[in-house]
Amino acid sequence: MMHSPIDPAALTAALIRCPSVTPEEGGALGILEDVLKDAGFTCRRVDRNGICNLFARWGEKGAARSFGFNGHTDVVPLGDEAAWSVAPFGAEIRDGMMWGRGATDMKSGVAAFAAAAVDFVQQTPPDGAVILAITGDEEGDALDGTTALLDWMTATGEAMSVCLVGEPTCPEEMGDMIKIGRRGSLTAWLTVTGKQGHSAYPHRAVNPLPAMARLVDRISAHRLDEGTEHFDPSTLAVVTIDTGNAATNVIPAAVRATVNIRYNDLHSGGSLTDWLKGQLDAICEEMGVTGALTVKNSGEAFLTPPGDFSDLIQRAVEAETGRTPVLSTSGGTSDARFIKDHCPVVECGLVGKTMHQVDENVSVEQIHQLKAIYGRILRDYFAG
Amino acid sequence: MMHSPIDPAALTAALIRCPSVTPEEGGALGILEDVLKDAGFTCRRVDRNGICNLFARWGEKGAARSFGFNGHTDVVPLGDEAAWSVAPFGAEIRDGMMWGRGATDMKSGVAAFAAAAVDFVQQTPPDGAVILAITGDEEGDALDGTTALLDWMTATGEAMSVCLVGEPTCPEEMGDMIKIGRRGSLTAWLTVTGKQGHSAYPHRAVNPLPAMARLVDRISAHRLDEGTEHFDPSTLAVVTIDTGNAATNVIPAAVRATVNIRYNDLHSGGSLTDWLKGQLDAICEEMGVTGALTVKNSGEAFLTPPGDFSDLIQRAVEAETGRTPVLSTSGGTSDARFIKDHCPVVECGLVGKTMHQVDENVSVEQIHQLKAIYGRILRDYFAG
Repeated sequence: MMHSPIDPAALTAALIRCPSVTPEEGGALGILEDVLKDAGFTCRRVDRNGICNLFARWGEKGAARSFGFNGHTDVVPLGDEAAWSVAPFGAEIRDGMMWGRGATDMKSGVAAFAAAAVDFVQQTPPDGAVILAITGDEEGDALDGTTALLDWMTATGEAMSVCLVGEPTCPEEMGDMIKIGRRGSLTAWLTVTGKQGHSAYPHRAVNPLPAMARLVDRISAHRLDEGTEHFDPSTLAVVTIDTGNAATNVIPAAVRATVNIRYNDLHSGGSLTDWLKGQLDAICEEMGVTGALTVKNSGEAFLTPPGDFSDLIQRAVEAETGRTPVLSTSGGTSDARFIKDHCPVVECGLVGKTMHQVDENVSVEQIHQLKAIYGRILRDYFAG
Repeated sequence: MMHSPIDPAALTAALIRCPSVTPEEGGALGILEDVLKDAGFTCRRVDRNGICNLFARWGEKGAARSFGFNGHTDVVPLGDEAAWSVAPFGAEIRDGMMWGRGATDMKSGVAAFAAAAVDFVQQTPPDGAVILAITGDEEGDALDGTTALLDWMTATGEAMSVCLVGEPTCPEEMGDMIKIGRRGSLTAWLTVTGKQGHSAYPHRAVNPLPAMARLVDRISAHRLDEGTEHFDPSTLAVVTIDTGNAATNVIPAAVRATVNIRYNDLHSGGSLTDWLKGQLDAICEEMGVTGALTVKNSGEAFLTPPGDFSDLIQRAVEAETGRTPVLSTSGGTSDARFIKDHCPVVECGLVGKTMHQVDENVSVEQIHQLKAIYGRILRDYFAG
């Protein structure tokens, strides 16, 4: 039996109507499971610690060529609900735009690749497999989302030859950018402790503030690198320094600061932690204070070097939009940081201008374009 | 009619029993007024903006030699009342100590000079005047306390030839220190403002934190001076730096810091404000941020140069205690900073170890010693 083509805009609307704010599944994965099962996909819910995830495969397990899509159906909270000018889960269409939380990030992307995959396997069944790994935990801690899917796939012998993440990647116009890697992101919490005292008698106290100030000056002035072939220079931002001392006649005991580093492939979470520790130790030695450092590394820098896979995607985008997308490694983090340990991964999606904002919205035309891009990528991949 | 000598310990106890937490008079000035009037002092309440102050004079207005005492009957709040092991306004005596808020700071001092003055004018009426200028606003803003008394005195032609402030001045032992001046104290509030942004894109933002850090490092490392003949080196303490940014992916717009400077006679509030302004302007120029500065100068540095008046007091302390007091300019501020514009002023009192603390207490023996010192000073002054 032949299916009629899936309308990706209608599927996006159905997903937006599911209130799937992390960690709620909200019915979104259920809708996708129905669509995919109906088209002959083997579906498996891979839930962990209360988080729902969906694995779907068309074709044989262990196929030599296996094309994977990754995305998420969970969305960020509404923020100031009163500030929305539309129903946040309404998927209303007005002036060619569809409105609602998750419209760009990234229910449209998931709907586009699900629709493209279903049409593709129905119309031109490939010699290989098409896998959809869809998570409900990307916007939260991401501890039981894509990593749970990948853990389960490894354990059961499921594998993707390549993977496309459908996150919005275009800063301005449809087709202007795809991402072949991401910078790493590390956050460090620094505490410098001295000895409290009266500000009229500073020689009896050890003020931690000059030590913290010198440390912040040094690490802020330090240039981590000059960038690499595919990455911008790494950046370091001290985002807060806090003491909380209301008494002008008291030298405080301690001061805290938080540092966020976005780093390229010249660094790792470990190398940056060592560097920060060294800077802190030097200040402690120099200024007679003690220091403490806590670090959270949200993801290492990674790169899928430009090659067959990125060429394929670049050509498909160009064919559908008339634009040659820039190969970028800019921006924050995405689940590609987990997938890169399993197979080559590239991110390609639509324009993400309103993601996480009030009145998030997406161009209906772009949803259709995105489905067309994904369909072309599948055809070219299995033709190649 | 001849009075019997006044017991300064009993008078101290009576004053402690008045709950005169700033700005409450609590009955304390009333007790003193009764005692002084009874001994022939002309008393005048000099109240301003709800603050009560007492002016008392024995002898003629405009006398060629007029010895002044200054002190305050207001006290700091109890702090953690549950932590007191005695009734805070009870004036209980145990093991030779009298307990209660204001025991050292400075109801004992006021009682001692009032008792000494009454006994002196009764026993050996001097050729001159004895003035007591007692305020109820020293621990607060001090806007309507000793300054109100001095303003009124200037306006009405009252004057002191010299003035002794009865604040506790001894760090360890009775008689070990008197104060011939005080350092100035200036507090400055600094704000550095940049431009808020996302920490993944620091080039689109202007982070104010590195600028503030460099400023704090510079002013903390700067040595204001090496001290002068009668003063320790000036000190600068940055007491707090605060941002209040909880989001690790946001570069904040602004950061605030507070600086407290205790300065000697090489500086003034004006010169230090100019210096801070110059430092801030330089950082703004260098780092592309904007800065704001607010200053409160609590008192200029001042010195009553060692001479006849300090010699007189030093000798009296030595005669009564066997110790030669050090001439010091250390510590915080006192109302001597106002009096120094009217006449030579020296501070001389008992041991201040428990001032402002829970379970404040004073040695009963020291109260009697202090009255003896003040009595000897009066006799020597008018004999000289």
